[in-house]
Formats: sequence, C-alpha cells, structure tokens
Amino acid sequence: MSEFTFSVKVYYEDTDAAGIVYYANYLKFMERARTEWLCMLGFEPIFLHHEYQMVFIVKQIMVDYLKPALLNDTLEISASLSKLGKVSMVLAQQIRRQQTVLCTAVVKLGCVNYQTLKPQPLPPSLKACLEQL
Amino acid sequence: MSEFTFSVKVYYEDTDAAGIVYYANYLKFMERARTEWLCMLGFEPIFLHHEYQMVFIVKQIMVDYLKPALLNDTLEISASLSKLGKVSMVLAQQIRRQQTVLCTAVVKLGCVNYQTLKPQPLPPSLKACLEQL
Amino acid sequence: MSEFTFSVKVYYEDTDAAGIVYYANYLKFMERARTEWLCMLGFEPIFLHHEYQMVFIVKQIMVDYLKPALLNDTLEISASLSKLGKVSMVLAQQIRRQQTVLCTAVVKLGCVNYQTLKPQPLPPSLKACLEQL
Amino acid sequence: MSEFTFSVKVYYEDTDAAGIVYYANYLKFMERARTEWLCMLGFEPIFLHHEYQMVFIVKQIMVDYLKPALLNDTLEISASLSKLGKVSMVLAQQIRRQQTVLCTAVVKLGCVNYQTLKPQPLPPSLKACLEQL
Repeated sequence: MSEFTFSVKVYYEDTDAAGIVYYANYLKFMERARTEWLCMLGFEPIFLHHEYQMVFIVKQIMVDYLKPALLNDTLEISASLSKLGKVSMVLAQQIRRQQTVLCTAVVKLGCVNYQTLKPQPLPPSLKACLEQL
Repeated sequence: MSEFTFSVKVYYEDTDAAGIVYYANYLKFMERARTEWLCMLGFEPIFLHHEYQMVFIVKQIMVDYLKPALLNDTLEISASLSKLGKVSMVLAQQIRRQQTVLCTAVVKLGCVNYQTLKPQPLPPSLKACLEQL
Repeated sequence: MSEFTFSVKVYYEDTDAAGIVYYANYLKFMERARTEWLCMLGFEPIFLHHEYQMVFIVKQIMVDYLKPALLNDTLEISASLSKLGKVSMVLAQQIRRQQTVLCTAVVKLGCVNYQTLKPQPLPPSLKACLEQL
Repeated sequence: MSEFTFSVKVYYEDTDAAGIVYYANYLKFMERARTEWLCMLGFEPIFLHHEYQMVFIVKQIMVDYLKPALLNDTLEISASLSKLGKVSMVLAQQIRRQQTVLCTAVVKLGCVNYQTLKPQPLPPSLKACLEQL
C-alpha cells in the first residue's frame, strides 16, 4: 500500500514546559498529513463538504509515543490506508525524524453528514479513488 | 466600572519549551473570562447565536506581557467594560497571579451575524444590561 | 477502584469548524484531570519535578470517540488507576456530558527523568499512595 | 525595509465553531513566520539558545483583525523589522490571502536570558545582521 508523507516543522507553539512536543499536538500533525493526502487525491475538506455534505471525524485512535520530538525538528508524517469500509476507513500513520520513528498511530475515520454528524456512506468517487491506491 | 474575574489554572498544554505560558495562550484565558462574564450576565454564546444569530469576534487586541505565567500557576483573569458602541464594545482585561499583574490587554469585540460575519447592532437587551454595569 | 472526576467547560478555543470539539483537544481535557488527580493526592507536577527530578509522559493512548462534545458543554473528565508498574501506570479515563459517555480512553504514563527523559522508577511515596487507592 | 514572507495552510486545528480561524491562532502563524525569518538569517532558536543562552519573548503585541481566515486557506505571513533596540526589536507583520490583508500586527520582542528570563542585549552578530537588512 502506498505511503503518503508530509513535512512538519516543530515551533514553540507545539512544545510544552517539559521541552518536548505536547502529546496532543502529534494528533494535529497527523491530521495535517491526512488532510494533505486527501487534497492530493482531489478531495479537500471544503470540496467534501460542499459536494457531499460530509466531513471525516475521528472515531478511534491508538498512539504509541516512542521518542519525543523537539523544538525545531523537521518531522515526516506518513499516512497509508489500511482498511476501507462503507462508512469508515482506517489509516496507519507514523511520525519520523529522519530514520527514527517517534510515534506510530492507527486512526479510524468515520464519514458523517456535516449537519447531523450521523454516519453516511463514503462518496463513490472517493471510494473508487481509494480502492485504486 | 465593575470588574469580573475568573480563575484559570496553567497546565502543560498552555506552556512551551521556554518553560512559560506560550504568548498566544493568554488570549485563550482572556476569552474564557469574557465568555464567563457574558454567561454571568445571562448571555451565553449559544443563546446569542440562537436568539440573535450573532457572535462576538475580536476586531482588535493590544497586549502587554509584563511577567511570564508558569506551569501550575493559578491565575485571575479580569474583564471590565470600558466602552460600549452600537456594533462593538471595548474591554480592559488583566491576568494576575495573586497581587502581581502578568499581562494587561485592551480588546475590541465586534458584534457580527453568525452566518455572514457582517457587523450588526448589539441586541437591545444585551445593550441595556451592559449600560447598567 | 476509586474514580476521580474533574469538570471542564468547552470554549471556542476547543472547537473547530465542524462545530464540535477538535479531536486532539479531548487529550488536553484528559491531562487536566490527570494533573488534578495527582494534585489531590499531593503530587503536583512542580513537586514531582523539584523533589524527584521526574515528569510523567504519555507512552500510549487509545481513545474511542463516541459522541461529539459541543461549545458551552460542561464535561466531567474521569480518571482511575487501572494498573501500577515500576516505571509506568495505566489509567482509564472517560469524558461525560451528564449521563452520556462521549469518549473513553486508556492512557499509559511513563515516569521519566526530567532532564534525560529516560525511564526511572516511580517515587516510593507516590507508589505507596497509589497502592492504597 | 525588506519583507520576509512565509506560507501557512489553515487546518481544522486552527478554526473554531464560528467557522473561522480562532483569534489566538493568528499569533501562532505570526510566530512561525518570525522563526523562519530568524532561521533564514542563520539564527534559529536552538542556536540562539545554545550559543547565547537567549530566547526572544513577546513583550507587546497589537493586532487588527480585518477579515477572517477560513479552513483550507493558504495564507502569506509577512514579517519586517521596523525598529531595532539594544534588548528588543519591533516587527510589523501581516497575514494575507492573495491580495487581501486579513490581519496586521506590531510585535515587540525582548531578548532575555533563557534561564532567568531577564533582559539581555541582542548578540552583536545578530544585531549586525539585522542592521544590514
């Protein structure tokens, strides 16, 4: 399965008083990579919203924090599709500093209606695109 | 003019790698105090939204950072109305740790339509309430 | 096992353009509850740092997002110890709005040296305190 | 005076329930641009810290919010030096979406010791570099 990667730089805003990236902020980095991956495939958030009245929301996340990221680090954030369902998909993600894996995650995304937040099927065009990856 | 105050505790999420509260996060504390002040007056955000299709947005802010706030500090955030206009109001705010003033701010809030984000007059009931402070 | 709970109010800072609390921000709420729990037991972060040169860092987290939290919600964040190791502990956490569980999490915390971020045993006084819960 | 610019993309993390970028988050964007500007000049934060035991902290900020930034916007964040002192400097910053100015700011940065947070003179090499801009 092909892997998408996206670079993120660590600024003061991302760190905390322990001198490392605050644990919740890795989730921001992972969402940036997921968004850029969808944009690259032609399905940016605004388009999904306007065209299909949908938004992806995170249903479940498992994160292993292996080593801390530090101020000024340039990180590679990866995303690769590991499971595709009718109303959801599962991505595997990693955060790496050069060859070192700092963080791994499994993220389950649900496709929901933008207004009601109720589950709805992934748009066929998006599904077809993801099946070809 | 009466002063409203609200307590905030500093957690890791608020700090950065310099060991102090990150400069943008003081603005979060100030907004919490403004929201609680409006709630106390009976005008919570959801009510303003549903009843008057309005939301307050910040038009201008001036902040003086005098001394840093630190992890685990309990801070008092003050808000007092200093000017009341037709479509806006100005608040003076302070962040204090006991007797020490850490931060002072002047914040101009605009009343705008929730959908269009265009300016609209403050609701008469809110205006009347604020004029009595 | 006794459960500690802590209240959190949802402000604009916590929400995103989908109108719900941003998924990473639930982790901030959970950390506030963990910090308050440790404070209640007499082991606040600053004390752990000064007395034992230690800090807790999150090693692993699993989160199930069941229902979204919304602007202005008052949430109860729970924390209860589910496993106590030599250099780590595991907590079960929930985020609830009244009777409704919005989010459940299992969080593994590692005890590390504040400077080196290397694992070190939990202080005996903290361990003894936790064993009595 | 030459202007440095840096691009930022708006993600869900930056927005709030009003559907626009949360007002404090513009300050994060501005700091990213300041950091990249210093990096370009050869004075990245880690270097300033290790070589001169210094860090820049914000002493004062004035921000005018003219128009809201939205999800998925690509923004240009500018920074240009407008005043250079012994222990501080003042920058003018703008946030633009194409030709439209969304936000203008004046930011006063103080040079302080990394440990004590007391003011200290700007390093001569940095001062010389800035004087040549």
